[in-house]
Amino acid sequence: MTVRALVFDVFGTVVDWRSGVARAFAAFPPARGMDPFALADRWRARYQPAMEEVRSGRRPFAKLDTLHRENLEVVLRDAGADLSGVSEADLDDLNRAWHRLDPWPDVLLGLHRMRRRFFLAPLSNGNIILLANMAKRAGLPWDAVLGAEAARAYKPTPEAYLNTCDILGMRPEEVCLVAAHNGDLAAARRCGLRTAFVPRPLEHGPGQSSDLAPAEDWDWVAADFVALEAVL
Amino acid sequence: MTVRALVFDVFGTVVDWRSGVARAFAAFPPARGMDPFALADRWRARYQPAMEEVRSGRRPFAKLDTLHRENLEVVLRDAGADLSGVSEADLDDLNRAWHRLDPWPDVLLGLHRMRRRFFLAPLSNGNIILLANMAKRAGLPWDAVLGAEAARAYKPTPEAYLNTCDILGMRPEEVCLVAAHNGDLAAARRCGLRTAFVPRPLEHGPGQSSDLAPAEDWDWVAADFVALEAVL
Repeated sequence: MTVRALVFDVFGTVVDWRSGVARAFAAFPPARGMDPFALADRWRARYQPAMEEVRSGRRPFAKLDTLHRENLEVVLRDAGADLSGVSEADLDDLNRAWHRLDPWPDVLLGLHRMRRRFFLAPLSNGNIILLANMAKRAGLPWDAVLGAEAARAYKPTPEAYLNTCDILGMRPEEVCLVAAHNGDLAAARRCGLRTAFVPRPLEHGPGQSSDLAPAEDWDWVAADFVALEAVL
Repeated sequence: MTVRALVFDVFGTVVDWRSGVARAFAAFPPARGMDPFALADRWRARYQPAMEEVRSGRRPFAKLDTLHRENLEVVLRDAGADLSGVSEADLDDLNRAWHRLDPWPDVLLGLHRMRRRFFLAPLSNGNIILLANMAKRAGLPWDAVLGAEAARAYKPTPEAYLNTCDILGMRPEEVCLVAAHNGDLAAARRCGLRTAFVPRPLEHGPGQSSDLAPAEDWDWVAADFVALEAVL
């Protein structure tokens, strides 16, 4: 059974969201004097609960830009930021910090090599324009931009993985998820996808305690994307 | 009002579907002795009626690969092809002739120049993997692969255009459709998109009588993609 497509978790696996979001807070005047990494962590902490509203069916599908934008105002107000002089356009721009994240240092070389042999696409909970703007800025060579918006379902629901395979026109065992998160890989495996783990021990900054090692016997484990390409 | 994204009709506007499909029939043993261009034209003639089943609501959304595959068997049987020695895999491969179409000669240079200033995506009735395989083979530099499957609606229904703008996170007037077909442009204009016409007088082979000139005062008209980039 041959893998034909590699699909990627993005936040944490492909890009360093924490540094990129902190950089945006550091340049946002109402957040002056606050710890930008703490703000990034608080914004990210609201990510799963917001998606759970959709996954549970309590809310119709809404793209991640929309969920991020709602959460951003809560995070800023909870932190005591004075938003009186801030326009909607300023907040929209800060919200697009997620469109301007940088890849980890091994990503571009690894993806460019992988692309010779595999079909490459993100399978992220990010929405299409978020992922496409990120790719255009960073040079990520996706063959198509897939993910929750194309699948109309957020990971880790089975539909997120299975609808992506349907779009690809491939059987699940022909598709391999690459992720730094054991939970994402476990959900993909339950749907029949192949799995590859690449640890990102600095995703959550110094002192990270989760996802430092593979939790199951994933099909492939590699230290970074260049090493993964070599073993695939 | 500034255009930020260019979205493209693909079959006829970006690629020469007729030559590419005829090439595939010419290499298909059961079609030996038949006119491959006539077969291509007959296959294409079943394209709009098949989509109309979906547009009318008589049939749930089905991707173009599926519609093409159904139509292919009808075309071959109507032509009297002997399919007794043909496998499903052979027919699937012939069906993917639409994944292997070549761009017109001006397309790659034009798109690479446009991509410096605009977000580029197909807005085609082709499905995502069809368009992405085509792009990978031909080197089309899309920033994202959009179209009927992402929008869950076939052109020229308004949802095909408006859902695409929603995915892009842009107002319709920030998006320009590039097409060789006046009807496609008219439908896009009714949704508020900007419009650019590029004639493709050989799309239907010698003797083409339709879409040789602009039928309305489109926002831009140019002889090819390189000329279009220069006037945008």
